[in-house]
Amino acid sequence: MTDPTGTTGTDVEADPVAADAGDPLAALRDRFSLPPDLVYLDGNSLGPLPRGVATRLSQVVTREWGTSLIRGWNDHGWIDLPVRVGDRIAALVGAAPGTVVAVDSTSVNVAKAVSAALRLRPDRQVVLSDSGNFPTDLYMAQGVVNALAGDAHLEVVAPDEVEGRLSGPDASSIALLLLTHVDYRTGRMHDMSALTAAAHRAGAVTVWDLAHSAGAVPVDLESCRADFAVGCTYKYLNGGPGSPAFVYVAPRHAQVVDPLLSGWMGHHAPFAFEPAYRPAPGIRRMQVGTAPILALAALDAALDVWEAVDMADVRAKSTALAERFVTGVERRCGHHGLELASPRDPSQRGSQISYRHPEGYAVIQALIAEGVIGDFREPDIMRFGFCPLYLRHHDVETAVDALATVLDDRRWDTADYKVRAAVT
Amino acid sequence: MTDPTGTTGTDVEADPVAADAGDPLAALRDRFSLPPDLVYLDGNSLGPLPRGVATRLSQVVTREWGTSLIRGWNDHGWIDLPVRVGDRIAALVGAAPGTVVAVDSTSVNVAKAVSAALRLRPDRQVVLSDSGNFPTDLYMAQGVVNALAGDAHLEVVAPDEVEGRLSGPDASSIALLLLTHVDYRTGRMHDMSALTAAAHRAGAVTVWDLAHSAGAVPVDLESCRADFAVGCTYKYLNGGPGSPAFVYVAPRHAQVVDPLLSGWMGHHAPFAFEPAYRPAPGIRRMQVGTAPILALAALDAALDVWEAVDMADVRAKSTALAERFVTGVERRCGHHGLELASPRDPSQRGSQISYRHPEGYAVIQALIAEGVIGDFREPDIMRFGFCPLYLRHHDVETAVDALATVLDDRRWDTADYKVRAAVT
Repeated sequence: MTDPTGTTGTDVEADPVAADAGDPLAALRDRFSLPPDLVYLDGNSLGPLPRGVATRLSQVVTREWGTSLIRGWNDHGWIDLPVRVGDRIAALVGAAPGTVVAVDSTSVNVAKAVSAALRLRPDRQVVLSDSGNFPTDLYMAQGVVNALAGDAHLEVVAPDEVEGRLSGPDASSIALLLLTHVDYRTGRMHDMSALTAAAHRAGAVTVWDLAHSAGAVPVDLESCRADFAVGCTYKYLNGGPGSPAFVYVAPRHAQVVDPLLSGWMGHHAPFAFEPAYRPAPGIRRMQVGTAPILALAALDAALDVWEAVDMADVRAKSTALAERFVTGVERRCGHHGLELASPRDPSQRGSQISYRHPEGYAVIQALIAEGVIGDFREPDIMRFGFCPLYLRHHDVETAVDALATVLDDRRWDTADYKVRAAVT
Repeated sequence: MTDPTGTTGTDVEADPVAADAGDPLAALRDRFSLPPDLVYLDGNSLGPLPRGVATRLSQVVTREWGTSLIRGWNDHGWIDLPVRVGDRIAALVGAAPGTVVAVDSTSVNVAKAVSAALRLRPDRQVVLSDSGNFPTDLYMAQGVVNALAGDAHLEVVAPDEVEGRLSGPDASSIALLLLTHVDYRTGRMHDMSALTAAAHRAGAVTVWDLAHSAGAVPVDLESCRADFAVGCTYKYLNGGPGSPAFVYVAPRHAQVVDPLLSGWMGHHAPFAFEPAYRPAPGIRRMQVGTAPILALAALDAALDVWEAVDMADVRAKSTALAERFVTGVERRCGHHGLELASPRDPSQRGSQISYRHPEGYAVIQALIAEGVIGDFREPDIMRFGFCPLYLRHHDVETAVDALATVLDDRRWDTADYKVRAAVT
């Protein structure tokens, strides 16, 4: 099937102006504070500033902390904020209220989930993951299995070998499956429902990392019967740099899991100051120390943006934006040796498009100089995230134009763009 | 020696006006945003708002995050903020630059320090602590020793039995000594130097919790030859509710400790995305996940207050304020059955005074209604913290007057004041 305009795939509205005019999410862009003349394709790394955050933080600092002081824990409900924010995240990932808490970092939550999952399967040894997992998940799992009593060990297979391993002859040794749903480099998306079912058939439990899924693609933890999940809130949820992460525990496990990190905020009665640990009912036991109220308040305000958003609209627009980008790059930059690292089939990927290029780092720096922000991941991956809450079809056209210019004119080919910054 | 005014101990300037006039720290009070007509004796639980925090947070949110977006990690030095803030805290606890990092919660840092310390003494079994330790430290240690390989276990003795246990017949089984320097209930202060030396003579390493010490009393980790320390920044360091905690590792250990929580921000090269964990040099390996930049920026701004402060002045004023309170309460409230829970000798306590009273919870609620904020700790402890950066001698007189009124008039004796709030 060909398109007479030569500009689109079959399901992309050719005219960006028409596409933007028909966008049911278009009004949400005004909810963000975005620098002018910038196309931001890095919301998969750090989401932009939602407008309500500065005001909310100012109120929490000046009125709540400044005026109420210690009384803020009761008077402003700070003590329940991790659970209240958790409930809002739960609604975005198909989880029931009371099953998610916003707490600690994703890495720390991986340690909690892996150790809790291992305790549910004490007779099994294998923590199964894949080589597409984000490194910190593998580092944390390795650290935990190295330290814990028992002979658990981490086994890392290729992403497309996971399903076979779960149905293979030694599957009964697998305690848990630890996967990131959407690959941070390629955007390749695992079938959460199918792999969770396969893990359960093998008698294993699952720990899903939703860092590149929450707010990016529809997730239904409950209908997948996922066991544990963790995730990040500073990407598609726009909570700010280093905002608190989250952890989900299925209700069928929440009353029995025994936390490795057994802190006072996960205690049944934190202010009774009992000498021995007694886990709180349900998800609250995944809390550890005192909650970071300022950071949680910023995240809470950032989540306001999602109140009336339908994830189906998000997915549809994400797919349309990414398709527009891919077809545009194919048309305009096809001769420059870019290799699509993401699945070509939109149903197989999350909300990003990645290309390999031997000078990918320098190309991204040159593109940033043109006002289009993407990022780079070793060894040669250029990443472009498509966040439907604030990106327009028009922006995607601008990005394609800029990438074509950078490549056509070899603007990346200067020494300045080849020196790696501390954070890439 | 008697004081003809009958109002003071030997080293308290009787006249509060004269005492305030001669206070070298008096000007610092203006650096805080304090509600009018309130005497705040709970800075040992949550410090008040330093004036610079709101402006700094607003800048970080609006200018740094809002404008620089992902580039903030490099352009605004976010990536090094945990270490830069750590260096500022180090200066307040007698530690060298590069030995402290501001990260995670105190509880999570206890888990890191305990597991790291146990790995330094793999042939020993006992984690020695005392019953005066803050419960979360005991909970975390218990959780870690329960989970780890090996047969480590937690042994809790009375505070005054610690020294004997360290020099007793079974001392060679002690892997580490885990103590909170200043008792959260009574203010009783351990001799850090003597107990660290005793632990070392026994072949053990030390983990000191400085939650009620940092910014409250002089601490010299280096000259004590402390091994590990953790601490809280939302009390005497005024970092805001749930602000990031800190962890110290002595340089002689920092290159060899093997983190239990081995996250990407503690990796030698976080942005190389290597498949295997390789710890960063030194203290950076105690980082785990992405740093909470908004919360760290608030803490960084709060620490500005300390730039020109001499901890000897802080200690002298803290002692004078507390002595004024104790002598005032003895004089005015002695017949009401208050029992001093803190050591009477100022050299034996931190920067708080505690009293036991069977109706302590209700007395504190009645006192808050009078505009004097202290707090309550189970089962019967009324706590009063004395933070010399913003408290005046005059405030202490006001607090004594209010306590006397509450007790004389039995203002605490109403049902409303006896119902426990969520946070006590």
